[in-house]
Amino acid sequence: MDNKKYAVILAAGDGKRMKSDKPKVLAEVLFQPMLRWVLDAVKQAGVDNTAVIVGAHKEQVTAYLDTLGEYPAFEQKERLGTGHAVMQAKSFIEKAQAENADILVACGDAPFIDADTITGSYEYHKNSGNDVTVVSAIVDNPTGYGRIIKENDTFKAIVEQKDCDSEQAKVREINSGIYWFKAEKLSGLLDKLGNNNAAGEYYLTDTVAVAEKKGVYTADSTDVVLGANSRSQLAALNEVARKRKLAELMDEGVDIPLSDGIIIGKDVKIGHDTVILPNTIIKGNTVIGNGCEIGPNSYIADCVIEDNVILNNVQAHESKVDSKAKAGPFVHLRPNTHLHSGVKIGDFVEVKNSEVGINTCIAHLTYVGDSDVGKGVNFGCGCVTANYDGIKKYRTTIGDNAFIGCNTNLIAPVTIGDNATTAAGSTITKNVPADSLAVERGQTRIIEHWEKNSKRIKKA
Amino acid sequence: MDNKKYAVILAAGDGKRMKSDKPKVLAEVLFQPMLRWVLDAVKQAGVDNTAVIVGAHKEQVTAYLDTLGEYPAFEQKERLGTGHAVMQAKSFIEKAQAENADILVACGDAPFIDADTITGSYEYHKNSGNDVTVVSAIVDNPTGYGRIIKENDTFKAIVEQKDCDSEQAKVREINSGIYWFKAEKLSGLLDKLGNNNAAGEYYLTDTVAVAEKKGVYTADSTDVVLGANSRSQLAALNEVARKRKLAELMDEGVDIPLSDGIIIGKDVKIGHDTVILPNTIIKGNTVIGNGCEIGPNSYIADCVIEDNVILNNVQAHESKVDSKAKAGPFVHLRPNTHLHSGVKIGDFVEVKNSEVGINTCIAHLTYVGDSDVGKGVNFGCGCVTANYDGIKKYRTTIGDNAFIGCNTNLIAPVTIGDNATTAAGSTITKNVPADSLAVERGQTRIIEHWEKNSKRIKKA
Amino acid sequence: MDNKKYAVILAAGDGKRMKSDKPKVLAEVLFQPMLRWVLDAVKQAGVDNTAVIVGAHKEQVTAYLDTLGEYPAFEQKERLGTGHAVMQAKSFIEKAQAENADILVACGDAPFIDADTITGSYEYHKNSGNDVTVVSAIVDNPTGYGRIIKENDTFKAIVEQKDCDSEQAKVREINSGIYWFKAEKLSGLLDKLGNNNAAGEYYLTDTVAVAEKKGVYTADSTDVVLGANSRSQLAALNEVARKRKLAELMDEGVDIPLSDGIIIGKDVKIGHDTVILPNTIIKGNTVIGNGCEIGPNSYIADCVIEDNVILNNVQAHESKVDSKAKAGPFVHLRPNTHLHSGVKIGDFVEVKNSEVGINTCIAHLTYVGDSDVGKGVNFGCGCVTANYDGIKKYRTTIGDNAFIGCNTNLIAPVTIGDNATTAAGSTITKNVPADSLAVERGQTRIIEHWEKNSKRIKKA
Repeated sequence: MDNKKYAVILAAGDGKRMKSDKPKVLAEVLFQPMLRWVLDAVKQAGVDNTAVIVGAHKEQVTAYLDTLGEYPAFEQKERLGTGHAVMQAKSFIEKAQAENADILVACGDAPFIDADTITGSYEYHKNSGNDVTVVSAIVDNPTGYGRIIKENDTFKAIVEQKDCDSEQAKVREINSGIYWFKAEKLSGLLDKLGNNNAAGEYYLTDTVAVAEKKGVYTADSTDVVLGANSRSQLAALNEVARKRKLAELMDEGVDIPLSDGIIIGKDVKIGHDTVILPNTIIKGNTVIGNGCEIGPNSYIADCVIEDNVILNNVQAHESKVDSKAKAGPFVHLRPNTHLHSGVKIGDFVEVKNSEVGINTCIAHLTYVGDSDVGKGVNFGCGCVTANYDGIKKYRTTIGDNAFIGCNTNLIAPVTIGDNATTAAGSTITKNVPADSLAVERGQTRIIEHWEKNSKRIKKA
Repeated sequence: MDNKKYAVILAAGDGKRMKSDKPKVLAEVLFQPMLRWVLDAVKQAGVDNTAVIVGAHKEQVTAYLDTLGEYPAFEQKERLGTGHAVMQAKSFIEKAQAENADILVACGDAPFIDADTITGSYEYHKNSGNDVTVVSAIVDNPTGYGRIIKENDTFKAIVEQKDCDSEQAKVREINSGIYWFKAEKLSGLLDKLGNNNAAGEYYLTDTVAVAEKKGVYTADSTDVVLGANSRSQLAALNEVARKRKLAELMDEGVDIPLSDGIIIGKDVKIGHDTVILPNTIIKGNTVIGNGCEIGPNSYIADCVIEDNVILNNVQAHESKVDSKAKAGPFVHLRPNTHLHSGVKIGDFVEVKNSEVGINTCIAHLTYVGDSDVGKGVNFGCGCVTANYDGIKKYRTTIGDNAFIGCNTNLIAPVTIGDNATTAAGSTITKNVPADSLAVERGQTRIIEHWEKNSKRIKKA
Repeated sequence: MDNKKYAVILAAGDGKRMKSDKPKVLAEVLFQPMLRWVLDAVKQAGVDNTAVIVGAHKEQVTAYLDTLGEYPAFEQKERLGTGHAVMQAKSFIEKAQAENADILVACGDAPFIDADTITGSYEYHKNSGNDVTVVSAIVDNPTGYGRIIKENDTFKAIVEQKDCDSEQAKVREINSGIYWFKAEKLSGLLDKLGNNNAAGEYYLTDTVAVAEKKGVYTADSTDVVLGANSRSQLAALNEVARKRKLAELMDEGVDIPLSDGIIIGKDVKIGHDTVILPNTIIKGNTVIGNGCEIGPNSYIADCVIEDNVILNNVQAHESKVDSKAKAGPFVHLRPNTHLHSGVKIGDFVEVKNSEVGINTCIAHLTYVGDSDVGKGVNFGCGCVTANYDGIKKYRTTIGDNAFIGCNTNLIAPVTIGDNATTAAGSTITKNVPADSLAVERGQTRIIEHWEKNSKRIKKA
C-alpha cells in the first residue's frame, strides 16, 4: 500500500499587477478560481489531506475554502518567501510526518497542474527514495524560470534566471514550482533554509540544494508551469483552457462550426452530434445529450439537457430540459424549471421553479412561475402566473390539455382543471373546474364618430 | 459543341473520426452539407448528369438527395475502395458512354471544388485527348497526399505517401482526388483495377497507371484538396469558407468592423455600406441591400432586406423587410412577415405571417400574427392578436392609422377600422368601425385604508 | 512661450476601393470616424487652430465638421495632389503666418496619429529651426512607402517606392505623411512645387526637396503610418485599436476572460475588477465603475454605471445605473433612464426616460416609460405605463413601496400613492390614494361542461 499523500498549496501571494481587490488565487479561468483547478487536480490524484497557505486577502480565500469544506488554511502573516510559506503549516507537516506520508507542494495560481503529473511524479518520487523531487517541464522559452541543471544526466541544481551563466541560460528544462517531499525530511530541510539573498526571503527552491537525495520528474504537459501575474496573462490562461476543452469536445463528436465567443467549463459534458453555435457559455455541472443545437447566444449553467433539444438564445440556470424540447429565441429558464419532453417555449418567455408537462406549448411573452403545468397545455400570448402577493409566493396548477387564453392572469393559489379554458383577457382568482370555460370581462362599448386624438381615452 | 459532361460523386464513406450518427458528406460547412457544396460546383460548371455513390448512412444521404430531386444514387454495399465505388454506377457510366460523354469523378467530402477548376480541367482534358486527367494542386505541405511524379515535365505516375522515396516525398504537387475520364474508357480502366494491396481495395488512383493517355491539370486553388475527417478539420474548413466569404463581401464594400461570431452563408448577397456587427449569422438565400446595419447578435435566414434597414438583435426567417424599416433590439420575425417601408418594431415583439403597413409602429412587448395591418398604425405595449382558438387560426385586420391601446387583445377574426381606437386593457371580440372607439372594461373600485400585504388581493 | 500651433488635415480623398457612398475619412474605427481620431489627437496635443481640406463627398464631411463646431473647411475642387490640397487653405496659412505659427499637416485617414507624436515632433521642429520636419516611422515592411534617405545620419531626401534603387528599397524608415512647417515658409515652399510627374499632381513630399532646413523626427509608434484604402484594411485598423484598448483596460485591472466580440470605444473608462463578458460593445462616453459584470451580449452607449452593477444581455443608451443595480437578461434601457441603487430589472423589460427608486423591482415583461417610480416598488409581470394617447406623452408617478399587480395598465397622467396596490389585470385611469387598493375587473363567469374547441371563446 502507498503511504498517505499530503499536499500544501501556496495561496498567500497578493498579485499586485492584477490590480484587484480579490486575491490572485481566486482569479478565474473558465469561471473557476485558479485555486480550485489546483485543488481539483490534487483531489483527483488521490491526495489524502490538503492544506492551503493563505496571506493576502486571507478572509476571501478562507471564505472560499469554507465553501469547499475540506481544506484547512494556515496563515502566512508576512510574505517571506515560498519556504517560509510552507513553514506555516507546521502542525499539518507534523501530522504528515506521523503518518510517514509524502507531501506535495504546489502553487495555487498555476491552474494547469494535472492529476497525471501529480501521480506520475509521486510514483517517481517513491521509487527513487528521494527526499525531494522537483517537477520540471521542457519549454520553448525558459526565460525567467529557474533552470534544471544536470551533469551527465544527473540532477545537480536549480539555477535562477539571474544567476545563469550563458550555457545555463540555454537550458530549456525548468522548475515548475511543484515538489514532492518525504514528510520526515521536510521540516529538516526547511530549517536549513537561509534568507541571505537580495529579497531576504526563504526560498523553497533552496531545499533542493540542501537535500541529500533529490531528483527531477519531467511533466508531459508544459502547461503545468503556466501562471498569471496580470490580467493579460489570465486571459491567456483562459484561452489555453478554452481551446483545450473545445478540442476535447470536438474529438468526442461535438460540432463547433465557429468557436468565437464560446466558453465551456471544464466539467461540462456534451454528447456527439450536438452543435454549439457562436457566443455560447456553458458552465458548472451542465450535461448535454446528443443531437442538440445550443446557441447562438445561449448561457447554460448547471443544467441537464437531454437529447435532441434546441436552445436558441436561451439563458438557463439549474434546470432540466427533456428530449426534443425546444426553447427560444429570447427565453429565460430560471432555477428549478423542468421542461418535459417535446415542450415548446417561444420568444420572450420566462419559466421559473415549474414543471411543464409533455408537449405543452408556451409560445410568447409569458411568465410561468411556481407552477405545475400538465401535458398538452396551450398558453396564449401574454399570460402571467401571478404568484406573489407582496408577502408570499403561491403555486398555480394547470391540468392536462387546458387552454389558457391570451393575457390571462392566473392569481395563485389557483387550479385550472383538465381540458378547461380561460378566455382572453381574464383575471382568474378562483379554481376553474375541468372541461369548463372561465371568462372575466366587462361590457364592450363602441363609441362611434369618436374623434381620435381629440379626447383622452381614459375619459371615454 | 462539347460532348455531354457527367459526374460521379463519391459519398459512401463513413467518417468514423467524426463520431457522428450522420454521414460525413452531410457534415456542414457554413450550414450547408459538404456534399451540397460539391453538387453546386458541379452544376455551376455545366455538368449535365450527376450520380452519387452512397454507402454509410445511405438512407440519410438518399433522403437528402431526394430533397434536391435530381441526383440518382448508387449504393456501394461494401467499402472496397474508390475504384469499387465508381463501379457501382455501372448503368450511369454506360449511359455516359452511349452519349460519348466525359465523366468527372470527385469526392463528396472535399467541399471547395469550384466551377473554375471543373471547367478548366475539362477543357484541358478535351484538348489533350486523354483517357484520364488528374486534377492536382501544389501545396506547402504534401505529407499524406499522393504525389504527382513527372519526368521532363511529363506526367508519369501518382505515388502514395507510403511508397514515396525521399526525392518523391519532396514533391509538392499532389493528387486532389478529382479526375476526368473519357466515358468510353472508364469501364475498361475500372476492369483492369486489382485489389492486390494491404487493404484489399480497388483504388481509382490506379486507373492512371493503366491508362494509355493521361495528364495532369493543376488547379489554381489549393483549397480543392481540403477535406475533413474530424470535427476539428471540419471547423477548419468552416473557417476557410467563412474568411473567404467575409473577404469577398468587404471587397464589395460591406463594412465588418469585427468579424467575431459572424457567419455568412455562401449564397448570401449584401450591398455596399451595409455594416455587419459581431455575432451575426446570415444564411440561406438572404439578400440585403445597401446602407443597412445588421447586428449585433442577429440571425437572418432566407430574408429579403432592402436598403437602409436596421436590424439590431433580431432573429428573422423567410421575411421581407422594406427600406428604412427598423427592428430591435430583441425582435423575432417569423416566416411570411412583411414589414413595409419605414416600419418600426421595438423590443420584445414577435411578428408572424403578417403584413405590416408603411410607417406602422409596434413599439414593445407585442405579438402580431396572421394579421393585415395598415399604414401608420400605432400599437401600444402588450398587444396581442389572439389568432388561435385551440383548433384553427384566424386573421386580424387593422385599418390605416388605427390606435391599438396597451394590453389590447384582438380576438380574430376581427377587423379594426381605419382611424379607430381601442382602449387600453380591452379584449376586442367584435369588429370596430372606422373612426370609433372600443372600450371593454369593468368598474373601478378604490378600497381605501387597505392593509397591503395583510389580505390577498384576489379576495378584494 | 511657444508659438501658436496650427494644423491642416487632409480629408479630400475619395477612397474608391472602399466602394462607399461615404467619404473615406468618415469610415469608422471603433465607431468613430477616422477623421475624428485625427482631430482629437491634434486637439489633445494643444494645437490652437485646425483646418480641414475637403473634396470628395464634401457635403458629408462638412456636415460632420459642423457637428464638432470648431473646424473650418477648405474645398479642394480638383484632386491634384497633397501639395495642392494644402494650398487650398490659403487664408488659414496666411493667418498662421501672421501669428508666426507652425503648421502641422496630417492625413485624415491615418487615425493613429497621437498627441505624443505631435508634441514630440513639434519640440524637435522648434528646437531644430527647420523649415519643414517630416515625421517618420521605422517599420518591418516598408514596401509602398516613401523611404527616408540619410547620408551620415543627415536627412537627405524622401524617395518614393517606384524611384528606389535596390539599396534604398531596403531602408525601413518611412515617411508617415505627417509634417511640421514654419508657417512663414510654407507658402513659399508650396509655390515652388511642380507637377511634372506621371500623375500631374503637386506632392507635399516635394516640399522637403526644396526646403533649405529640413529634418526628420522618428515617431515611437509605428501605428502612425497606418491607414485604410479598403474595407479589409479598415477591419485591420479596427483590430489594432480594439486590441490596444483591451490591453490598456486589462492593465488597469479589468477582467476580460475572452475578448471575442468585444468592442470598447477609445474614450470609455472602466474600473478594476469589472468583468467584461464576450460579445459586448461599449461606446461613447460610457464610464463604468469597479466590480461590475457587463455582458455577455450587452450594448452600452453613453452610460454612467456605478460600482458592482450587473448588466447581462442589456442594451442601454444614455442612462445612469447606480451601484448594486442588476438588469437582465434581455433588457432595454432607453435614454434618460436612471436606475437607483439596488434596483432589479428582470427579463423582457424596457425602461425609458424614468427614475426608478432604490431597491425597486421590475421583474418581467414590463414597460416603464416617462415615469417617476419611488423606492421599494414591486411591479408584477406584464405591467404597462401607457404614456401616449396618440398625440402627447404624459408622466406616471408611483409612490414608495407601491405594489403594481400583474398586467396592470397605468394610463398617464396618473399617480399611485405610497404603499398603494393595484389589482392584477386592472386598467388604472384615475389616481390611487396612498395605502389603498384599486381594482378594475369584470364579473367572472364559469361555464361548465363547455366543449372546448367546439365553440369559439369569443362567442361565450
